[in-house]
Amino acid sequence: MNILPINIVECYQKIKNQLTLTPILTHHALHNLIQGKVFLKAENLQIGGSFKFRGAFNKISQALASSPDIPGFIAGSSGNHAVAVATIARMMGKSALIVMPEDTPMTKITKVKKQKAEIVFYNRYQENREAVVERLAKDSGRHIVPPFNDPDIIVGQGTIIPESFNQLSAMGNTGIQSILLPCGGGGLVSGCAIAASHIFPQSKVYAVEPEHYNDLEKTLETGKQHTNDMQEKTICDSIMTPTVGNVTLPIIQKYNVKAISVSDEDVLKAVHFAAEELNIIVEPGGVVGLAALMRHTNLFFGQHVLVVLSGGNIDPKILMKSFNL
Amino acid sequence: MNILPINIVECYQKIKNQLTLTPILTHHALHNLIQGKVFLKAENLQIGGSFKFRGAFNKISQALASSPDIPGFIAGSSGNHAVAVATIARMMGKSALIVMPEDTPMTKITKVKKQKAEIVFYNRYQENREAVVERLAKDSGRHIVPPFNDPDIIVGQGTIIPESFNQLSAMGNTGIQSILLPCGGGGLVSGCAIAASHIFPQSKVYAVEPEHYNDLEKTLETGKQHTNDMQEKTICDSIMTPTVGNVTLPIIQKYNVKAISVSDEDVLKAVHFAAEELNIIVEPGGVVGLAALMRHTNLFFGQHVLVVLSGGNIDPKILMKSFNL
Repeated sequence: MNILPINIVECYQKIKNQLTLTPILTHHALHNLIQGKVFLKAENLQIGGSFKFRGAFNKISQALASSPDIPGFIAGSSGNHAVAVATIARMMGKSALIVMPEDTPMTKITKVKKQKAEIVFYNRYQENREAVVERLAKDSGRHIVPPFNDPDIIVGQGTIIPESFNQLSAMGNTGIQSILLPCGGGGLVSGCAIAASHIFPQSKVYAVEPEHYNDLEKTLETGKQHTNDMQEKTICDSIMTPTVGNVTLPIIQKYNVKAISVSDEDVLKAVHFAAEELNIIVEPGGVVGLAALMRHTNLFFGQHVLVVLSGGNIDPKILMKSFNL
Repeated sequence: MNILPINIVECYQKIKNQLTLTPILTHHALHNLIQGKVFLKAENLQIGGSFKFRGAFNKISQALASSPDIPGFIAGSSGNHAVAVATIARMMGKSALIVMPEDTPMTKITKVKKQKAEIVFYNRYQENREAVVERLAKDSGRHIVPPFNDPDIIVGQGTIIPESFNQLSAMGNTGIQSILLPCGGGGLVSGCAIAASHIFPQSKVYAVEPEHYNDLEKTLETGKQHTNDMQEKTICDSIMTPTVGNVTLPIIQKYNVKAISVSDEDVLKAVHFAAEELNIIVEPGGVVGLAALMRHTNLFFGQHVLVVLSGGNIDPKILMKSFNL
């Protein structure tokens, strides 16, 4: 499927009444930092705590439109996507089954359980998650909601762009030169890159990765798909993926997305700035765009920049650590 | 001055482009709790971290319209009002002088200093703050920006109501039955009560106080102005005032506002809910409306309720404490 910008605008019209209209926040210290304007789209305030609600809602509502009698949904995820799928299934009166590694932190398990989802654990060293998901989907008749490598998911995530455009227009700002987005599997980046090509045609899209999980940066550099060493450490657990997807990567390449990376230290500073100056809680993997702006200031000097803060599912201990900087 | 609802709507039209359009957040657990609908207006995301920006901006812009050559502004406050006045003065290219008690916590001093304001300390056991402010205003030619007991301030704070109405309308909800507001000096409550009388005519307005700082509750009960014992302890420092003002009280009485109170324990639970479930940081004094909803559930059963979360200027240690509940 060749996704067009119009598909994303139409999707936004269809799902927008189900979303929280997350704010665009500003702070004079960020304007000063780049001698330009910085607009922070706070998707950590989305229902379920992240942008993942958008794609999952699009996928699930489309599945229900064509097959209203599906018994439920299944997703392999330990984080924001799991919460989104569980939340939407509950809203729709359907069951959700979430496939999680056995060593998932308890805080994440709790968030999914609060949404009444059933959880199946698997051993991530001995089993393949996708295989487990597919087997359980087949056994139970549940519909799979993939985390990123799927056109309906990509279209849903891209709805951040038309929504931000409407908000920026109302604020008198439409000329965005750079858009900074967290990148794990590339669902957010590919959807937003497609939409931005039409809605902010003068803009450059940046995919921001943690420094030892910069597979996209290396893949774009070499033209050869790079896979991350999953033994490397990062606090950005929500975007700690082996590689971007084979559906998302060609889109990212087609739209000339640029990849940049940030360190854990950069990320902690940005978590702290968001909490201390903006009163919002943003998780490490969700704040990398702001971290990149603060780290690579020269890239954005004098520009109008849109930064997506993508989620807030943080371990409170990391939030606290950020305050001791 | 007799403030009319139309004054507040007109003020909103005048100042709205200078404000952050703070979101209205929802959470299914709160809907379930009261078997109704709960809309949280997140003014902790306002510029400067609280609703205080609204009143101070209205006051300062009116002062500059009539006397553009004022050298600067002065305010007596150690908290959100101080940050708001300092922020706006900086935006306007004017100086700000903030009068603070000598024992103000360092975090609050830092927030004001970041806005380039000058600070004068006074001894709150030996000196009267208003007298210090008036003397310094006279000496320096600076214009006083009072924290709550002033018609322009009250009008500005009330702009939350027309703004929320516009947002709720876009969400398909206009029938609000209860409005919960934090109450210290009563600026927010009086402004919102005036506006709500016209905009949400079916609604009852609740002023929420900390349990040992419930002067308004006692004053409304007895008809005799009550003053709080300032030796009592509360974590709600931002609404820890000796009494509501003599300008705000008659408005609060005229519009039949009801006062209710909450304990520090209720407040900590609400701080935690906001952080854990909504990814926002709300200060104790700013979250009392949500605390009251969670505590006095029966009062709001089956209703559509608007709760204003008024500020986010929290001591990180209290935020952390809320996570250990």
